[in-house]
Amino acid sequence: MLVVMKLDAPRADVERVKEKIKKLGYTPHEIPGQERLAIGITGNREKLEPELFLNFPGVLDAIPVTKPFKLVSRDFKPDNSVITVNGEPVGDRELTIIAGPCSVEGRQQIMDIAFTLKEIGVKFLRGGAYKPRTSPYSFQGYKTEALVYLKEVRDVTGLRIVTEVKDTETLPMVAECADVLQVGARNMQNYSLLEAVGAQRKPVLLKRGMAATIEEWLMAAEYILNGGNYNVILCERGIRTFEPSTRNTLDLNAVPIIKKLSHLPIIVDPSHGIGVWDGVVAMSLAAIAAGADGLIIEVHQDPAMALSDGYQSLKPSKFKLLLDKLEQLAPIMNRTFTRNTVNAEIVQ
Amino acid sequence: MLVVMKLDAPRADVERVKEKIKKLGYTPHEIPGQERLAIGITGNREKLEPELFLNFPGVLDAIPVTKPFKLVSRDFKPDNSVITVNGEPVGDRELTIIAGPCSVEGRQQIMDIAFTLKEIGVKFLRGGAYKPRTSPYSFQGYKTEALVYLKEVRDVTGLRIVTEVKDTETLPMVAECADVLQVGARNMQNYSLLEAVGAQRKPVLLKRGMAATIEEWLMAAEYILNGGNYNVILCERGIRTFEPSTRNTLDLNAVPIIKKLSHLPIIVDPSHGIGVWDGVVAMSLAAIAAGADGLIIEVHQDPAMALSDGYQSLKPSKFKLLLDKLEQLAPIMNRTFTRNTVNAEIVQ
Amino acid sequence: MLVVMKLDAPRADVERVKEKIKKLGYTPHEIPGQERLAIGITGNREKLEPELFLNFPGVLDAIPVTKPFKLVSRDFKPDNSVITVNGEPVGDRELTIIAGPCSVEGRQQIMDIAFTLKEIGVKFLRGGAYKPRTSPYSFQGYKTEALVYLKEVRDVTGLRIVTEVKDTETLPMVAECADVLQVGARNMQNYSLLEAVGAQRKPVLLKRGMAATIEEWLMAAEYILNGGNYNVILCERGIRTFEPSTRNTLDLNAVPIIKKLSHLPIIVDPSHGIGVWDGVVAMSLAAIAAGADGLIIEVHQDPAMALSDGYQSLKPSKFKLLLDKLEQLAPIMNRTFTRNTVNAEIVQ
Amino acid sequence: MLVVMKLDAPRADVERVKEKIKKLGYTPHEIPGQERLAIGITGNREKLEPELFLNFPGVLDAIPVTKPFKLVSRDFKPDNSVITVNGEPVGDRELTIIAGPCSVEGRQQIMDIAFTLKEIGVKFLRGGAYKPRTSPYSFQGYKTEALVYLKEVRDVTGLRIVTEVKDTETLPMVAECADVLQVGARNMQNYSLLEAVGAQRKPVLLKRGMAATIEEWLMAAEYILNGGNYNVILCERGIRTFEPSTRNTLDLNAVPIIKKLSHLPIIVDPSHGIGVWDGVVAMSLAAIAAGADGLIIEVHQDPAMALSDGYQSLKPSKFKLLLDKLEQLAPIMNRTFTRNTVNAEIVQ
Repeated sequence: MLVVMKLDAPRADVERVKEKIKKLGYTPHEIPGQERLAIGITGNREKLEPELFLNFPGVLDAIPVTKPFKLVSRDFKPDNSVITVNGEPVGDRELTIIAGPCSVEGRQQIMDIAFTLKEIGVKFLRGGAYKPRTSPYSFQGYKTEALVYLKEVRDVTGLRIVTEVKDTETLPMVAECADVLQVGARNMQNYSLLEAVGAQRKPVLLKRGMAATIEEWLMAAEYILNGGNYNVILCERGIRTFEPSTRNTLDLNAVPIIKKLSHLPIIVDPSHGIGVWDGVVAMSLAAIAAGADGLIIEVHQDPAMALSDGYQSLKPSKFKLLLDKLEQLAPIMNRTFTRNTVNAEIVQ
Repeated sequence: MLVVMKLDAPRADVERVKEKIKKLGYTPHEIPGQERLAIGITGNREKLEPELFLNFPGVLDAIPVTKPFKLVSRDFKPDNSVITVNGEPVGDRELTIIAGPCSVEGRQQIMDIAFTLKEIGVKFLRGGAYKPRTSPYSFQGYKTEALVYLKEVRDVTGLRIVTEVKDTETLPMVAECADVLQVGARNMQNYSLLEAVGAQRKPVLLKRGMAATIEEWLMAAEYILNGGNYNVILCERGIRTFEPSTRNTLDLNAVPIIKKLSHLPIIVDPSHGIGVWDGVVAMSLAAIAAGADGLIIEVHQDPAMALSDGYQSLKPSKFKLLLDKLEQLAPIMNRTFTRNTVNAEIVQ
Repeated sequence: MLVVMKLDAPRADVERVKEKIKKLGYTPHEIPGQERLAIGITGNREKLEPELFLNFPGVLDAIPVTKPFKLVSRDFKPDNSVITVNGEPVGDRELTIIAGPCSVEGRQQIMDIAFTLKEIGVKFLRGGAYKPRTSPYSFQGYKTEALVYLKEVRDVTGLRIVTEVKDTETLPMVAECADVLQVGARNMQNYSLLEAVGAQRKPVLLKRGMAATIEEWLMAAEYILNGGNYNVILCERGIRTFEPSTRNTLDLNAVPIIKKLSHLPIIVDPSHGIGVWDGVVAMSLAAIAAGADGLIIEVHQDPAMALSDGYQSLKPSKFKLLLDKLEQLAPIMNRTFTRNTVNAEIVQ
Repeated sequence: MLVVMKLDAPRADVERVKEKIKKLGYTPHEIPGQERLAIGITGNREKLEPELFLNFPGVLDAIPVTKPFKLVSRDFKPDNSVITVNGEPVGDRELTIIAGPCSVEGRQQIMDIAFTLKEIGVKFLRGGAYKPRTSPYSFQGYKTEALVYLKEVRDVTGLRIVTEVKDTETLPMVAECADVLQVGARNMQNYSLLEAVGAQRKPVLLKRGMAATIEEWLMAAEYILNGGNYNVILCERGIRTFEPSTRNTLDLNAVPIIKKLSHLPIIVDPSHGIGVWDGVVAMSLAAIAAGADGLIIEVHQDPAMALSDGYQSLKPSKFKLLLDKLEQLAPIMNRTFTRNTVNAEIVQ
C-alpha cells in the first residue's frame, strides 16, 4: 500500500497517518517527492483496503500493491491444479469437454442426448434441473423431477453430470446426482452459496459473473477454497458490455490472465459467450487456442424446439464436427483430447 | 413479436413458422416487404422470447414488442404505489431519507449514531448486520449480535430499521428486527431470495444489480410482487462502467425511466453511486431533482475509523447541511420533507 | 511512480531498474516489504508511463502516483475559470443555458426558433451546420448554407452561436459565425482538431467522448490549453454503457469530480444524456443540482418533423417551464439565472 | 420498421402515423394485437430511423428491421472481398501477418527490425510515424522524418508498409510511403478522414473504435466504400469494458459476426487487445482459430527501451515461435501461411 499525500500537508497530518499504520501493526516509509509525499507501508501480509486511509486529512490517494487473493494464487501454488472428477482429470493436459442441453426437458430427451453425446465421445453431460431465469413467468426447470432423470442418466451412461445449484436449500439434493456443481453467473457473489459449496467436497464449476472483474471472480473462488474445498474449476462465459449484437462479450483475454494469476483450471462457455449457435464453433476453437482447459457447450437434438437457449445450441451433428476439429487442434496446443470409448451398451 | 424472415425464404419455411405460432395459440400476420418478409404475432399476453423462432430456417431475427413485466408496470397500475413503513409513507409526496452507518460496529456506535440522526430529523436508520464482501478475509458484519443491537435501537428510538438480508436462512431473524429488508446489488438476481422475500410481507428495498438493465431490475421486482408482496421500493445505486475515477456510475437516468415504466417508488443511494464522501451531497441533490422519492445515505460519526465504506460516509454535521438543502429543494420538486420531531426521551 | 518488484528479484535486476530511473533524471527510493519490493521514484514533474518499467525482469507492476494533467488542473489554478462569450460569463455564478435545434434546417426554421428562444430568455443558441452521422446516408447538415443563416441569426437577434466544428478544413468558416466552437463526442480525441482549436482563441465547448474516462477528457482539454487557448468549457453528454433503455448513460458523477479536479466550467447535455424528450426536464434539474455551470438542450418547434434528434427535443412551451423551474432552483444552488431581456425588435 | 402504438390510441393518431408513412413513399400495414397496435412499414430500401415516428402521439416504440449498411453487407456481395496489396492478397485463404514496432524510433531501429522480421518471414511491416496520444506531453512520433525512413525501408526490403494516417492534411504524404493506410480507433468516426481515405484508392485498415458497436464500425467502413474505395480491411483491437486487468477487452466474437454480416476481411490486433506481451501469443492463436484473416502484432528489438507500447511488444525471438505455431494452425483452419522467402539482398 502506498498512501499519497499533499506535498504541503501539515506535519501533524503526516504523523497521524503514520500512527494509524503503526497501530495496524505495519511499518510506514516516508518517500518525499516534488509534487506529492508518499508513505509506503510494509509488513502487511494481505491487501489493505484504500479506505483505511482515504479519509485522513491531507491524503490524496491510497494505492494497493499486493493482490488480494491467496489460496487461488499461483504465487501460493505454482503448479496447475488438477481436479479429478470420477477418475477424469480437469486442468491436466487432457481437454475437458462438457456438453448437453440447457435444461433437462424430460426423461426421454435427456437420455437420448446423453447416449448421442457419449457415442460422439463426450465424458461430461450438462443439463439444468434448476434454471434461474430473468422472468418469473419463464420456464424454471423441472427441478426435482429433472434430478431423478440426471441420476438415472448417470447410472446408465456413466457420464459425469454437471448441473447448476442455485441455493443452499437444494444443494444436498443436487449434490446427490451431480459430479460437478455449477454455480451460475448470477450467483457468483452469492456468498452464502459459495460458503456452502466450500463446506462440501464435490468439484465446483464457478461461472464468472456478468459484470465481475477477474479479481472479483478469483475472490469468489477464494471463498470456496477458504471453506476447504480446493476443487474449483473456473468458467468464462462472457461479460456484459455495450455491444448489442451478441448476447455477451466472450472475454478470452481472461484465459491467459487467469493462467498467469491462478493455478485453477479454466474452461470456456462459448454458447453463452456469443449467444448464437453459428458462432459457437469459432469461439470454441478460439478458446482452446487461447489456452483454456476445456469447454462447456449447449447441444440439443432439436434446438428450434428447446425450452430454453435453443438459439445458442448446436445440433449433435455440428457438435461432432467441432470435436473432430478439436482433435486436430489439441496437439498443436500441447494438449490431448481422448474421446469416450466406453461402450454404452456395456455400461447398461 | 415480429419474426423477420428472408424475402426469398421457401414457402415451406414460412409456413413452418406460422404453424409454430398457431401451435402456441397465437395468430400470425404475414407482412411482405421489399427486403425482408415479416410475420407479426398477436394474441400473446406476455412477451415472447425471440429464441422460440430464431432457430427456424429462413428466420433472420425475432423482435419483441410487448414489455416483459406486468405487475410492476405502470400500464398495470397507473397510480404511484405508496409503501407504508410503520406509519411512514414511501413513494408519496414526502421525501424518504434513510441514513446510518454501513455496518453496525457495536452497541454504543449504532445507538449513538441513531440518536444523532434522529435529532437531525431522520426517521429511517440503515445499518448492516450481514455484510457481503468481495473478500472472505474482509469484515463480514457482526451478524446476530448486530441484529440484537438494531432491535434495541428500534425500541429505544422508534426509528425504522433498514438492513440487508443476504440469504433465505437468516431471513426470519433479520425480518424480526427490520422494518425494511434490503436486498443487495449482488443478490438482485438471487431468485431463491427474491421468492422468499416475496412470500412474506415486510417491505423490500431492492437494489439494482451492478450490471442489471432497468428491465432486468424490474423483472427482479416482478418476482417479489408475483410472490404476493407488493411492498417493493427500488434503489438505484450505480452501475458498473469503464469509468475508473468513481466507484460506480450513478445512473440517474433510471429515475425518470422507472417513473415512466413502473408505479413502484424509487430511491437513490449516492454513497455507493459515487463512492467518495465529497461527492455525496451533490449527487443527493441531483437525485431528488431527477424525481427520486428519497435517498439512502451512509453517515458515520468518525468515517476515518469506520470498519467499512468510511471513504464514502458523511459526518453527521455535513449530513445535517444536506438535509437543510433538501428542505429548500423539496417544494420546488412538489415534495414535502418533514423532519422527525418525536422527542427521543419520550419514546424511551 | 512506484515500481513493484518480486521480493526475490536478483540484485542485478533491482539495480537495472534503479539505473533506468537515474538515467531519466529522477531519484529511486528502495522500499523493501514482506511480499514485494517497491521502488519509489521522485523528481519527475509529470506522470510517468508504467510501460517504461513493466518490461524489466523482476518488475511486477508500475503504479503512477501523479495525475497526468497540468494546465487544466485545479492544483495549477485553484480558482474557477470564467470564460466570457460576448460579454456573457460561463463558469461564474450565473447559469449558462444553451438551447436550439439539433440542426439548422433552413433560414426560416432557425430564425423562428431563435426569436422564440430569445423571448423565453435564452442568450445562447445551438444549431448544427455540420452533423457527423453514423450513416453516410443520413442527413449531414446544410453546411455552408447553414453557416450563412447562423450568422444572420446572430446579427439579427444578438444571440451567441454555439455550433459544431468537425474538421480543421472547415474551422475558419465555422469560427466566423460561431461564438463557441463545439467539438463533438466522436472528435474528442481527434488531436489534429484539438490542436487547431487550441491555436485560435474562440471559446471551445469540448464534449466528452462516448467511452472517454474523465482523465482522458481532461487530457483532451489539456491539448487545447497547451495550444494557448484557455477558453474551454467541458460538456458531459452521457457515456456508453450496457443499459439499452436510454441512448446514453448521463454520468452526473462527472460534475462534482470535474469540479474537484479542474478549474474549467462544466455544462451538461441532458438531451443526448438520456435521449428521450420526456426525461430531459428531470435530467436538466438534476444536472444543475449536481453543480453544473449550465445546460445545452435541444429545442425544436415541431420535434416530430425535425430532421435529426427530434425524439429528444423539447417543444418551446415545455422548455419554458423548465426555465421557470431553473429560476427557482438557482438560488438554492447559490447560483443566479438571469433571462435575456434585450428586446428582439431593438436588436434588429 | 415496425411502429408500435397504444391499443387505445385514438383513430386520428393512428391515421396521422399512416399518413406520415405514405408521405415518405412507403406502405403502412396495420397489425392489431391484444396489448398493442403495430404498424408495419414496407417499401423502404434502407433502414428508417426510429425518431421519425417516436414523437407522434400514441406511439410507444419504433423498431427497425432492416440493417443500415449496404455496400459492406454480405447480402450485397456474398463472396469474400480479397484486397490485393502489392501482389499480396488479404482476405483470401492466405493468412496476413503484419508486424513491427509501435513507432518508428529512428532510421537504424526501423531498418533493423524490418530486416529481422523479413528474415522471420513477414511480408507486411507496421510502424507509426504519427502517434495520436492521450497526453499532449507524450511522444507523438517522428512524423515526416519517420515517413522518410519508412519509404527507404520499403525500397530496400520490399516489405509492404502499414502506417497510421491521423488527419486529412497529412494524408497525401502518408499515402506516398504507405501500402496500407491505418485509421486508428480514435478516428473511427472522424468522418472527414473517412471520406478522404474513401476518395483515394490505397487500401485502408480500419480499426474498431474503443466503444464502437459492430454496426457502427461497419457503418464507418460504409463511408469509405461509399466514397468509391472498396479496399477496406477491418481490424478488431479490443473494446472498452469495466475489466481493469487488461488494457482492452479483445472482442473475438466480432470475428464470426463480421464474417456473417460482411464480405470485408477482418484481422485482429492482439497487442492492443490484451495489452500485455505475455498474453499476445495466446490471443494471436485464438484470433486465427476464431476465423480471422490475419494479425497485426507489435514487435520490438528491445521492448523495455521502446518509446511507446513496449509493454505489449514481443521480442523477435518470441514472435518467431508464434509464426511457427501459426504454420501448424493454418491448415486446421483451412488456411495457408506462406513465409516471405524473397532474399533481402536481392531486393536491394
